Amino acid sequence: MDMEQNLVIGIDVGGQTTKCGVVDARGTVIAQTVIRTDTYDTVEPYIAELAAALKKIIAEAGAEGAIRGIGVGAPNANYYTGDIENAVNLSWGRTGSLHFAAMLKEAMGGIPVSLTNDANAAAMGEMTYGAARGMKNFIMITLGTGVGSGIVINGEIVYGHDGFAGELGHTSIVRHNGRLCNCGKTGCLEAYCSAIGMARTAREWLDMTDEPSLLRSLDVITSKDIYDAAKEGDALAKKLFDYTGTLLGAACADFIAFSAPEAIVLFGGLARSKEFLTEPIERSMNANVLPLWRGKVKLVYSSLKESDAAILGASALAW
Amino acid sequence: MDMEQNLVIGIDVGGQTTKCGVVDARGTVIAQTVIRTDTYDTVEPYIAELAAALKKIIAEAGAEGAIRGIGVGAPNANYYTGDIENAVNLSWGRTGSLHFAAMLKEAMGGIPVSLTNDANAAAMGEMTYGAARGMKNFIMITLGTGVGSGIVINGEIVYGHDGFAGELGHTSIVRHNGRLCNCGKTGCLEAYCSAIGMARTAREWLDMTDEPSLLRSLDVITSKDIYDAAKEGDALAKKLFDYTGTLLGAACADFIAFSAPEAIVLFGGLARSKEFLTEPIERSMNANVLPLWRGKVKLVYSSLKESDAAILGASALAW
Repeated sequence: MDMEQNLVIGIDVGGQTTKCGVVDARGTVIAQTVIRTDTYDTVEPYIAELAAALKKIIAEAGAEGAIRGIGVGAPNANYYTGDIENAVNLSWGRTGSLHFAAMLKEAMGGIPVSLTNDANAAAMGEMTYGAARGMKNFIMITLGTGVGSGIVINGEIVYGHDGFAGELGHTSIVRHNGRLCNCGKTGCLEAYCSAIGMARTAREWLDMTDEPSLLRSLDVITSKDIYDAAKEGDALAKKLFDYTGTLLGAACADFIAFSAPEAIVLFGGLARSKEFLTEPIERSMNANVLPLWRGKVKLVYSSLKESDAAILGASALAW
Repeated sequence: MDMEQNLVIGIDVGGQTTKCGVVDARGTVIAQTVIRTDTYDTVEPYIAELAAALKKIIAEAGAEGAIRGIGVGAPNANYYTGDIENAVNLSWGRTGSLHFAAMLKEAMGGIPVSLTNDANAAAMGEMTYGAARGMKNFIMITLGTGVGSGIVINGEIVYGHDGFAGELGHTSIVRHNGRLCNCGKTGCLEAYCSAIGMARTAREWLDMTDEPSLLRSLDVITSKDIYDAAKEGDALAKKLFDYTGTLLGAACADFIAFSAPEAIVLFGGLARSKEFLTEPIERSMNANVLPLWRGKVKLVYSSLKESDAAILGASALAW
């Protein structure tokens, strides 16, 4: 072991699994592992299991004593307090406030732990290692099961007064008769432009029309199915991307009016369909911004290797 | 003259008049004057007249040699470059880019000049002397002829990548068949929630219905007329405030999702009608935010004396 070595740990807490890795200053994941998140009803045994897993990969990396810090990306995480609050997607974190950072720090013998939500961690990762390297003002939008966001202004993540800034998935994209969102409001961006939102649109359109489509034969439609159908030339699938991208572009136009970013960075499962999303997003974004921003704000896609991105993002927080 | 004294100058460049004042560290305007903005076709004679006016109030205040800096609030002003760009409301600044800060600095013998747009200047003023004193995260919305905004995050004005951040008046509040805005887009917040926007709503409603109203006898309707009618108990005037406030509250909910501010601060002519605006804004804002912010974000009104506010705001930039 090199005592001069500077390493950090990145942890991505997802609803089903938790990915952990030891990361060096260049962004190389030198040891990693995965544990289950959803097999615990309470947080204590989960933390014990997590700490054991971390100690194993630290030993594997020969990194005892070299870990400068631990960064955690998790749903409903508060950077200011280190707490996870009312995380409906975590089996052990559904109600109340867990002092997650403090608990993990204690279990890891005092190594400092920083915590933020998963979209902020993704933004940190892109800024430190990825598509947003060198950018000081950008907005990261994660298009997964939900729509998350991490906002960077002057090189810093925006946490806001209470630590919960950057909930752009819950801004309004349909103001009248909008769909019910998981959050309890209606018309949220997440209800339309997440992977699940796009699948809902598909189901609605199939029910409303007789238009032939490869999607018609499926019992359950995923965004991946829509992508595959669009690749096959399916007209309805292509229109689904056009509709979803148009809504997302209009939302991005309003975000640009707020913080005048250099770029919008897209990340997550749905962002892999960039061949069908880029054109409608850019068209709609440029149609809805003030003339001074027309054609000037870049639309870029995450450049991090999917399997490493979550760990790298969280690890960037620990530096 | 006290050589130890620290004073600054604040300048508010409006379409018709330019207000200037010498301001001390406590926010007292110790000498002030007003010149015309709109009697010049080119910027050079305007700058010469402005410099002469400033020298006069500096002499009046006995402040020769004590001026630390000059802060200017102006439409379409860029903080990074010190330029005023394509300012359609300024007779001498309509097209192209004027190096306003550099020109004024030269005319004033090298005193440093900082420039920002009027809404950012107003936000600086509230933070330094007014209703937002002690706040590090708030959003200032100016409700005047247009709708402007100044966003403060971590105690700093957000300028963005290009210096033009904070154009919340041009985010979309009506996504389908929205009104044409001065900016060329449709459905902008400014087209509905400015003083002029509310007057447009009044005219539309009067034309569409036979509902009796005190406003019906007026050839030209201003927001002040609507306020006066509402005070008299006019039902239509009250509904106009309800409608305008409801739209503004929904817009504020989306702004909260972005930066999680401690407060929304309202300023400008229309904000004087707070007795009719507060209830619909708060109701709509709280109905449209995520549960975690419900009832938690303050709605406050500018506390600066109207006649001083513009000068103080600009002067705050100079410290």
